[in-house]
Amino acid sequence: MIIKPSVIGLGYVGLPLFLKLQKKFKCIGYDNSISRVSSLKKCIDTNKEFLKKELILKNKSFFTSKLQSLKTSNFYIVAVPTPVFKNNMPNLEHLKKSCLIISKVLKKNDIVFFESTFYPGITENYCAKILEKKSKLKVNRDFFVGYSPERINPGDKKHSVDKINKIVSISGKENLRIAKKVYGSVTKKITLTENIKEAESAKVIENIQRDLNIGLMNEIYKVCYKSKINFYSVMKLASTKWNFLKFDPGLVGGHCLPVDPYYYSDFAKKFGIKTNVILSARKINNSMYLFMYDKILKKIKDYKLDLKKSKILILGLTYKKNVSDIRNSFALKLFFLLKKKIKNLDVSDPLIINKKIQNLKIFENFDIDKYDLIINFVNHDIFKDKILKIKKKKKKYLDLF
Amino acid sequence: MIIKPSVIGLGYVGLPLFLKLQKKFKCIGYDNSISRVSSLKKCIDTNKEFLKKELILKNKSFFTSKLQSLKTSNFYIVAVPTPVFKNNMPNLEHLKKSCLIISKVLKKNDIVFFESTFYPGITENYCAKILEKKSKLKVNRDFFVGYSPERINPGDKKHSVDKINKIVSISGKENLRIAKKVYGSVTKKITLTENIKEAESAKVIENIQRDLNIGLMNEIYKVCYKSKINFYSVMKLASTKWNFLKFDPGLVGGHCLPVDPYYYSDFAKKFGIKTNVILSARKINNSMYLFMYDKILKKIKDYKLDLKKSKILILGLTYKKNVSDIRNSFALKLFFLLKKKIKNLDVSDPLIINKKIQNLKIFENFDIDKYDLIINFVNHDIFKDKILKIKKKKKKYLDLF
Repeated sequence: MIIKPSVIGLGYVGLPLFLKLQKKFKCIGYDNSISRVSSLKKCIDTNKEFLKKELILKNKSFFTSKLQSLKTSNFYIVAVPTPVFKNNMPNLEHLKKSCLIISKVLKKNDIVFFESTFYPGITENYCAKILEKKSKLKVNRDFFVGYSPERINPGDKKHSVDKINKIVSISGKENLRIAKKVYGSVTKKITLTENIKEAESAKVIENIQRDLNIGLMNEIYKVCYKSKINFYSVMKLASTKWNFLKFDPGLVGGHCLPVDPYYYSDFAKKFGIKTNVILSARKINNSMYLFMYDKILKKIKDYKLDLKKSKILILGLTYKKNVSDIRNSFALKLFFLLKKKIKNLDVSDPLIINKKIQNLKIFENFDIDKYDLIINFVNHDIFKDKILKIKKKKKKYLDLF
Repeated sequence: MIIKPSVIGLGYVGLPLFLKLQKKFKCIGYDNSISRVSSLKKCIDTNKEFLKKELILKNKSFFTSKLQSLKTSNFYIVAVPTPVFKNNMPNLEHLKKSCLIISKVLKKNDIVFFESTFYPGITENYCAKILEKKSKLKVNRDFFVGYSPERINPGDKKHSVDKINKIVSISGKENLRIAKKVYGSVTKKITLTENIKEAESAKVIENIQRDLNIGLMNEIYKVCYKSKINFYSVMKLASTKWNFLKFDPGLVGGHCLPVDPYYYSDFAKKFGIKTNVILSARKINNSMYLFMYDKILKKIKDYKLDLKKSKILILGLTYKKNVSDIRNSFALKLFFLLKKKIKNLDVSDPLIINKKIQNLKIFENFDIDKYDLIINFVNHDIFKDKILKIKKKKKKYLDLF
C-alpha cells in the first residue's frame, strides 16, 4: 500500500505538519479557506510561522481547497480548531464539517487521524459515527480512526513539531505500523498506543495542568499585590526549594489553555464529577484581565495622569508573547476595556499582520516621546530595544505583571 | 559575641536542627514534654528518625524541659507546630506558648528565629508583639526576630536538613551575619534576605503548589475511575510531553499540605481575596478518603466478600509512606470509617511505635493466609516482600490508588 497523506486544516497545527509530511510523501494540504490556500500557494504564511523558502513544496505535494483533490488520499489528518461556545461548551462544528468532507471521499482501508483537542471518546464515538453515516462504511472493518494530539507551542522555536514526542494512537497492529510510517516523517520520537481514549485524555490533561499552575500564580500574584509583598521576590525565594515549580502569572489566552479545561469538565460531568479544581483555575485566568484593568487605572491615578488628556500607548495585543495570533487574546479584551475609559489610547504590535481590528489602527512603529505612559501587555522580544530606550529616557512605563 | 543557640520544640523539625547545631555550638534542646526529653536523654527518638548513636551529644549540649536552662541562650529557634483548628482557622497556641516562655528569659541583643509555617506577618506582627509585651523589651532595638522556614520532608533521606537550601530572613546586616553563622552549621546552602514577609510567603506557597498539583491528580483520578479509563496509562502518555509534571494522586495528610492552604487563605481574606484555586484543591484532598471508602466497598462487593464474615487486613495507617506519624492521617480516618462497616478488619503498621490507638490493636506482623482481602493504604517500603508474597499466592489484594 502506498501511503498518500493529506492534512485537513492548514493553521498553526496543520501547516507545520503538512510541511514535514510533504518532504517524504506526495501530500495534499487542504483548507476550506480559499484565501489561505491562495496565500500558501504564493508561499506566504500569514501566521508568520514560516518563511517563503520553507513553503516551496516537494514530491508533487500541493495546497488545495477543492474536495475532489482529497479523493486520492488514503491517510487523512484532521487539524481543525475545537473551540468552545460562549457558554464554554465544546464547539465541534469545525470537526463535524471536516468529518463530513472526508466522508464524501472515504474509501475502504482508509485511515483518518485527528490532532485537535478532544475529550475522551470524541474520536471513536463522535467522529467515527459521522464518517460511518455519510460514507456507508463501517469503522474498524472498512476504515479506521486514530488520534495523535498536536503539542505545538506557538512562538516556541525549541519545541517544534520535529523535536517533540508525539503520541500516536489507533487500534490494530497494522494500523499502528502505517501510522508510525507517516508520523515518523514528522518526528523521530513517537509513542504508540492502541488505546485512543487514553491518548485523548493525555492531551487535555497536559494543558489543564499548565492552566492550573498559572492559575495558582495568578491567585498568589493578586494576594501579593494587595498585601504589598513583592511577588517576584517571593518566587525567587520559593525557587530555592528543590521541588518548587517555576510558573509565571499571566493572561493565558489562546486556543488550548482557555479551552481544554471546559472539554474535560464537560466529559467529567457525564460521570457526575464536578471538576472544581480545574474550573477554579480557569475562572481566575479568565478574570485576570479585569484585575489588570483595575491595576492600570490605579497606576494612572498614582501617576496623576488625566484619562481625557494623557496619551497612553499599549505594547502588544496578541494572546501571548512572540506570536501573531489575536484569537482568544485577553490583551485585546483588556485594551478594548481601557479604550472606553482612556481617550488617547494607542497600540502597537508589529507581529499582527492585519493592522485593522474592529476599526482599530495598530501601529507598526511608534515615537516614545509622544506618550505620557507606555504599558507593555505581552512582552514580545521585538519590543526589547524600545523598552530599553523608554527606561533610559525615564519615561513612565508599566509592565502588566 | 559568643552564640549560644537553643531549639524550642524537639519534634520532626526541631530535633534534626538541634542535632546539627550541637555539633558546632553548646546548644540547648528544649521541649515542654517531659517524656520526650526523658526519651531523648536516653538516646531514644520515638519518631524513629534518628538512631541511638546519632543522639549522643557534643559540646556540652543538652536536652531539657526546664525554662531556667534557656536563660543562657541568646539565639532561640522556635520549631513548634502551627496547625489549624477544626474550623480550619490558624491555631497559633503552641507558638504563643513558646513566645511567652522565651519572653521570660529574653535579654538585650537576643535573636529569636521561627521555623514553623506562618502566613506573612506572623513573625513581626504576632510573635514580636508577644515577646515585647512580656519582656518589656523593644523589637528591632533590644531584640530581633527572624524567620527561617523548615523544609524537612519526613521519610525523605535524600533531602535531609543538611542538604537543602535554607531561607534565612532577619532585618539588619549584623543580624544576618550572626544568623548565617548559626544556620551555616546546619546546611551549606543558605539564602539570606532581610524581608521576613517574603520568606513567610515563600514557605507557605511551596506547600500550596504541591497540594494543588496533587489535588489536580486526585480530580483526574476520579474522572478516570468513573469513566473506566486507566489513570496510570494516561499519566504515562502525558509524561511524554516535555513540560508535563509528574504528581501522584493521594490522601495528602500530615502537618504541612493540609494546613498551609488555610494559613494563606486566612491571610488573603484580610485583603478581600477568596483563594478559590487553593481551597478547591484542599477540598478534594480532604475528601479523597471518602472516595476511597466507596471504591473499597464496591471492590468488596465485586469480590463477593461478606462484610460480616470476611477477614480483611489493612496495611499502613500513617499519613504517608515510610513515616511513623499518624497525625492528620487520612489513612487512619479511612480505617475507622471502614471499621464501622467491616466486622473483621485488622491492621498492620510496623512503623507505628505506639501500637494502641483508641483501643485499636495494630499488628507488627501478620499471616497472609488468615485474610480474604488485603488492602494497602500507604505503600511503606517495609511491606514490599509481603506484597510480593501476596501476589505470588494470588491472594485478593488492593492498592488504594
